[in-house]
Amino acid sequence: MDRARDEPGHIGLRGNLDEGEPYGLPGSYLNSVYELRPLPQAEGGYGYPESGQTVINVTNGKLIRLLVNDEPFDLRYGEVQSHVRELDLHAGVLRRTVRWITPAGQLVRVSSVRMVSFTQRAVAAISYEVEAVDAPARVVVQSELVANETLPDQGDDPRVGAALAASLESEEHEAKGASGLLIHHTKVSRLRVGAAMNHDIEGPPGTVVESSSYPDSSRVSITARLEPGQKLRLVKYIGYGWSRIRSQPAIRDQIVAALSAARSTGWQGLLAEQRAYLDDFWASADVEVEGDPEIQQAVRFALFHLLQAGARAERRPIPAKGLTGPGYDGHAFWDAETFVLPVLQLTVPGAAADALRWRRSILDRAREHARQLGLRGAAFPWRTINGAECSGYWPAGTAAFHINADIAYAAAQYVEATGDTAFEEQVALELLVETARLFTSLGFLNAAGHFRIDGVTGPDEYSALADNNVYTNLMAQQNLRCAAETAERYPEAARRLGVEREEVTRWSEAAERMYLPYDTRLGVTPQDETFTEHEVWNFAATASDQYPLLLHFPYFDLYRKQVVKQADLVLAMHLRGEAFSVEQKARNFAYYEALTVRDSSLSASTQAVIAAEVGQIQLAYDYLGETALMDLNDLEHNVRDGVHIASLAGTWTALVAGFGGLRLRAGSLFFAPQLPAGIDRLAFRIVFRNRRLRVEVKATDATYQLLAGTPLTVYHHGKAVPLTVDQSVTWPIPDIETGPRPTQPPGRAPLLRGAHARIGQSGTYR
Amino acid sequence: MDRARDEPGHIGLRGNLDEGEPYGLPGSYLNSVYELRPLPQAEGGYGYPESGQTVINVTNGKLIRLLVNDEPFDLRYGEVQSHVRELDLHAGVLRRTVRWITPAGQLVRVSSVRMVSFTQRAVAAISYEVEAVDAPARVVVQSELVANETLPDQGDDPRVGAALAASLESEEHEAKGASGLLIHHTKVSRLRVGAAMNHDIEGPPGTVVESSSYPDSSRVSITARLEPGQKLRLVKYIGYGWSRIRSQPAIRDQIVAALSAARSTGWQGLLAEQRAYLDDFWASADVEVEGDPEIQQAVRFALFHLLQAGARAERRPIPAKGLTGPGYDGHAFWDAETFVLPVLQLTVPGAAADALRWRRSILDRAREHARQLGLRGAAFPWRTINGAECSGYWPAGTAAFHINADIAYAAAQYVEATGDTAFEEQVALELLVETARLFTSLGFLNAAGHFRIDGVTGPDEYSALADNNVYTNLMAQQNLRCAAETAERYPEAARRLGVEREEVTRWSEAAERMYLPYDTRLGVTPQDETFTEHEVWNFAATASDQYPLLLHFPYFDLYRKQVVKQADLVLAMHLRGEAFSVEQKARNFAYYEALTVRDSSLSASTQAVIAAEVGQIQLAYDYLGETALMDLNDLEHNVRDGVHIASLAGTWTALVAGFGGLRLRAGSLFFAPQLPAGIDRLAFRIVFRNRRLRVEVKATDATYQLLAGTPLTVYHHGKAVPLTVDQSVTWPIPDIETGPRPTQPPGRAPLLRGAHARIGQSGTYR
Repeated sequence: MDRARDEPGHIGLRGNLDEGEPYGLPGSYLNSVYELRPLPQAEGGYGYPESGQTVINVTNGKLIRLLVNDEPFDLRYGEVQSHVRELDLHAGVLRRTVRWITPAGQLVRVSSVRMVSFTQRAVAAISYEVEAVDAPARVVVQSELVANETLPDQGDDPRVGAALAASLESEEHEAKGASGLLIHHTKVSRLRVGAAMNHDIEGPPGTVVESSSYPDSSRVSITARLEPGQKLRLVKYIGYGWSRIRSQPAIRDQIVAALSAARSTGWQGLLAEQRAYLDDFWASADVEVEGDPEIQQAVRFALFHLLQAGARAERRPIPAKGLTGPGYDGHAFWDAETFVLPVLQLTVPGAAADALRWRRSILDRAREHARQLGLRGAAFPWRTINGAECSGYWPAGTAAFHINADIAYAAAQYVEATGDTAFEEQVALELLVETARLFTSLGFLNAAGHFRIDGVTGPDEYSALADNNVYTNLMAQQNLRCAAETAERYPEAARRLGVEREEVTRWSEAAERMYLPYDTRLGVTPQDETFTEHEVWNFAATASDQYPLLLHFPYFDLYRKQVVKQADLVLAMHLRGEAFSVEQKARNFAYYEALTVRDSSLSASTQAVIAAEVGQIQLAYDYLGETALMDLNDLEHNVRDGVHIASLAGTWTALVAGFGGLRLRAGSLFFAPQLPAGIDRLAFRIVFRNRRLRVEVKATDATYQLLAGTPLTVYHHGKAVPLTVDQSVTWPIPDIETGPRPTQPPGRAPLLRGAHARIGQSGTYR
Repeated sequence: MDRARDEPGHIGLRGNLDEGEPYGLPGSYLNSVYELRPLPQAEGGYGYPESGQTVINVTNGKLIRLLVNDEPFDLRYGEVQSHVRELDLHAGVLRRTVRWITPAGQLVRVSSVRMVSFTQRAVAAISYEVEAVDAPARVVVQSELVANETLPDQGDDPRVGAALAASLESEEHEAKGASGLLIHHTKVSRLRVGAAMNHDIEGPPGTVVESSSYPDSSRVSITARLEPGQKLRLVKYIGYGWSRIRSQPAIRDQIVAALSAARSTGWQGLLAEQRAYLDDFWASADVEVEGDPEIQQAVRFALFHLLQAGARAERRPIPAKGLTGPGYDGHAFWDAETFVLPVLQLTVPGAAADALRWRRSILDRAREHARQLGLRGAAFPWRTINGAECSGYWPAGTAAFHINADIAYAAAQYVEATGDTAFEEQVALELLVETARLFTSLGFLNAAGHFRIDGVTGPDEYSALADNNVYTNLMAQQNLRCAAETAERYPEAARRLGVEREEVTRWSEAAERMYLPYDTRLGVTPQDETFTEHEVWNFAATASDQYPLLLHFPYFDLYRKQVVKQADLVLAMHLRGEAFSVEQKARNFAYYEALTVRDSSLSASTQAVIAAEVGQIQLAYDYLGETALMDLNDLEHNVRDGVHIASLAGTWTALVAGFGGLRLRAGSLFFAPQLPAGIDRLAFRIVFRNRRLRVEVKATDATYQLLAGTPLTVYHHGKAVPLTVDQSVTWPIPDIETGPRPTQPPGRAPLLRGAHARIGQSGTYR
């Protein structure tokens, strides 16, 4: 049994107001705490999963209600003089200050500072202060733990998760002095979840503390009379714990211990730890964008969210929404490996390693899944929390076998980025071997000597069950090659996995003979073998309010036509760039630009990277804007369900791999920087093989600096640049030739950004 | 409003014992009486149907319970001396005689005769007689109407229908003298269903009749003391009615009137009408098979069931199970047009016309369905009762667009077989026009000038969403041609349907340029464009208990490999035979034989027809055995869900189109008879363009006889044979060249039949 599976999970708290109302969606999440729900099918079929996991809203520990002279503090009543909320990305806290006049005319100042600790993994804390400003006031602060909160109706967009009402069953509740505790278990999945709170209270003499508890709530009430200028101040410490196997007393002890530790660190101590942690992070990962403050803010916001989602996941999945909402049922997909880990491996490499260790921990389930499908090796689930497949629609789920190559790719890239040979031998090898086994059984060598992979679904979700999806085949090819090479590097470990000489030969042969269709008539690489034979979607007849297409047209029609939801072949050109000539990339890019509608948030960042590579630097900038502002500007109108972690990661990728031109190949860093008009200076820091680097790009030159670590050679537009610590090297940026700007489907061009943007432009964000 | 939609529906009663127990599944069905049920989806999608129709067990009118000296008559108790049940295909009744000794030792003789009237459409009747044989007995006969009977659990085979418990809500119940009545409505679909009974009773003096009723039952109890040799005899008349729109009093009057009419006809009258009706049927349709009594019985059994399913459907669907069970939820599929109507149009042509009129009556829904799919014209539902799509799995449902061409084909064939120009103008034209419109919008003319139909599902359900399925393309081609020709024949009617010159030109052009892929490497016609590129299913590794494959392997795996559930390209060679050379047919047949597992009951009859055509006459005979005995021998172990109407029809087709070689082309009958060893003589009667013909085939010659109607020329192995009434013509049968017998996947060869069959053979039925 992997002990890590029962460590306290990472905590996600939505930014609800302290007093709980008004709310869009209350949300407190613990990584991997889920409930099971049936996956009904109008017509069943062999091997369909019968139940799915759904992330649940666990006990809410962030509630602090306030009554002023018996009037509940609620922004919908009385008068709000001022209300400021601030997410401090460096301090790692959410600050709030309100000046509120009660309906009866009493002015109070309320301020709170909330944090989920990066350093004490089971702990959140809130500093809360209320002040009577101009007249005496009797205040009551009710600090609570609440389970089974009512959730608003979620509508029926299939991308929204299933809301499970009242999924927690009470096991224990307690309130004693300034502390409280609730222990529940989930009804079907039988996970035990505990939350506890304790408080440090400072109030005027006569301040009274009372507490009470019920099965679904525990409350500490603090009553004080405040003279003008007097304050009631409390620090609420919240501890969370959960386990699939540990007993109720064990969970209880665990969260009480976490609380004691936090309280002994104290509020100031927690703040200091948090800042030190983030100091270190920003020193490794900060990105500076001069000339475009909106993008500057967005990339730091993105990095902060990536850190929140990944840093303390610790052998748990990184879900598509992180721990910020119930979207996609809290499931992790291929996004983690393909979009998030490339950022983490160069900024917080330990988090990337942990995410891959989670994949390794679910290998048994993946092997079982492969067997059920009649395949060898391991078939990772398309969407999951606990490792079991939750896809209720297999053509766009289980059939997307590329996820296995994506995981293999991420494992190999992590090793490239870190040189972590222990990980390579202990984790990466097994992932590579089992996925290589999968692909040799999934494909076959035909009479013509081609290794074909038929009837699978690539990244583009507007196609399904196609033969020889080029992305899948290229990624599988890489997977097979890497498995062969790694097995040869670790013959002993490989032997323990049952790898024999002939198997390695089969992998190499399959890779060598991998079928990669090409359309000679059009001179482009087809997304899959017959893609370019199909009718082009009638974009002219598609109204702007018919996007996203999946909500207005049947899959039947989308699948059989040339219309692309998200970068597919274009993503292949990013991840397997060496498989295409520069000229072919430009031709392919232009071809798919005209077909790609970006109904997925997983598209713009990849288009930014390839646009930059083929010299369409302004277009790359436009796509950067789209990926960067997806959540901050709520471009898809669904940030209520949680942020788009992959799109946030794409902000970094569009800047670093797009304008920085960074590619990681054969253990070296290749840069090809260039800036669009509108960004005057781009600087980014990365961690690479125990070194810390900084790259600064200006319009005409780029400066490389090794901040820490042993000497290293990087590449600037193909030229070797040897670096030693504290000696910066500057190289001019060559002129880039730019062809005509590719066009997008009518109405689907990205918003222009920077110098070219103007009021009244006709492009669109999504 | 089409008045026909609210006529009393055709009645189907399962052959349950009079006393109701023991039962496998009680069943009383009225054509098109359904309840709605939700069609849940684990992941929703645009355009998925939200609810499905499911045939329901309506009020059971066939129950007659018996108590003998207070002991209930039940075959599980006491002693059964003899029990004979006999379905009389000529009298059209189900006869039963039992000699039963009660647990107390009393011998009684019970006999019953049950019929569902062919002539009085709303009526069923039972003659029931009980006799005390050797000692006096007090008998009570309880004749009942019962609604909401408990149904046994159905397991979870997806092919079984959904059992809906207690779907009827009481509106009225009555019992008066020897009569009773129940009126209910279905809870969700809001259909009103009424059943009434009345009795003629003959008993010894002192016979007492009482009655009572409850919301879900109405009972007439007849009590008599019988001396040895005395009998109690009753005739139960049962009337059924239902309506979507008519009021409770109207329904009540309707069924009471039906009962009165039946009672005035009387039992003997009903028997006489039934026999006269069947005399006429058998004179038009009988098939004689000398030398193989099992097939002789099977083909008459089949014809009787086809008549039951089709004769009085009258503008209602012919479901895949007829009205014999809840399998496939009581839905009608393409089976009706492709397998059943070809038989009916040459035996009971009016029934074929009515089934097509039903299709026309649901055209509005089909047009709406097409619009929802972004297509023009009409898209008929894959499975339905009331015209709305009920397919809960669109890749094997809605995407099977061939159903539209199948309907068009059946309409055109009906006109060929009958010369019914009124039907052609009033019904066929509109069906042809709307389906032609569908296909021109479903396919497109590509740059190379090919008309392609991409991403659809053909007949073979082990493939889905393929490009240019040859069956679909050939049938669509025929559909387009027929639409163009028919529109030209009826320019005025066509104009009323909005058909213009250019549209007809488009149809002709699409037909002309229809893309028909061919695999030059293998020299075979691929089932779809890329079918023969795929890996061949690993038959050697598939155990015999892993069939049907769909219950043991995921669709994912089946779809991407060369494995065929049911005749697809082979069916195209039957229905569009002129599109293939004789040599090509033999090559194709051999190729697909090796891939076809016959996990569908829709396969063997088609294989029989083409086997015969390519000279594999013994193999044809083997397949005849499989299709003919599907239900009688319960080869698929699911006859409890209802008979396989299409497979029953296939019995006739294997004999008449297989061994008779009958093809209907350009308004003429082409025969190419030949017999296998084992059948000494095959004679069949058909109705053709107001004529009645008889064909008799022996080993060496065939005799053609026009029984009634004006002179006609038919064709015998290509030679014209002019026929006039009462003058029979005999022609020798040419020698047929036979190549090597094609092989089937290991373990999937059909059982050998006739002269070649032997004990211990290794083939298998399914």
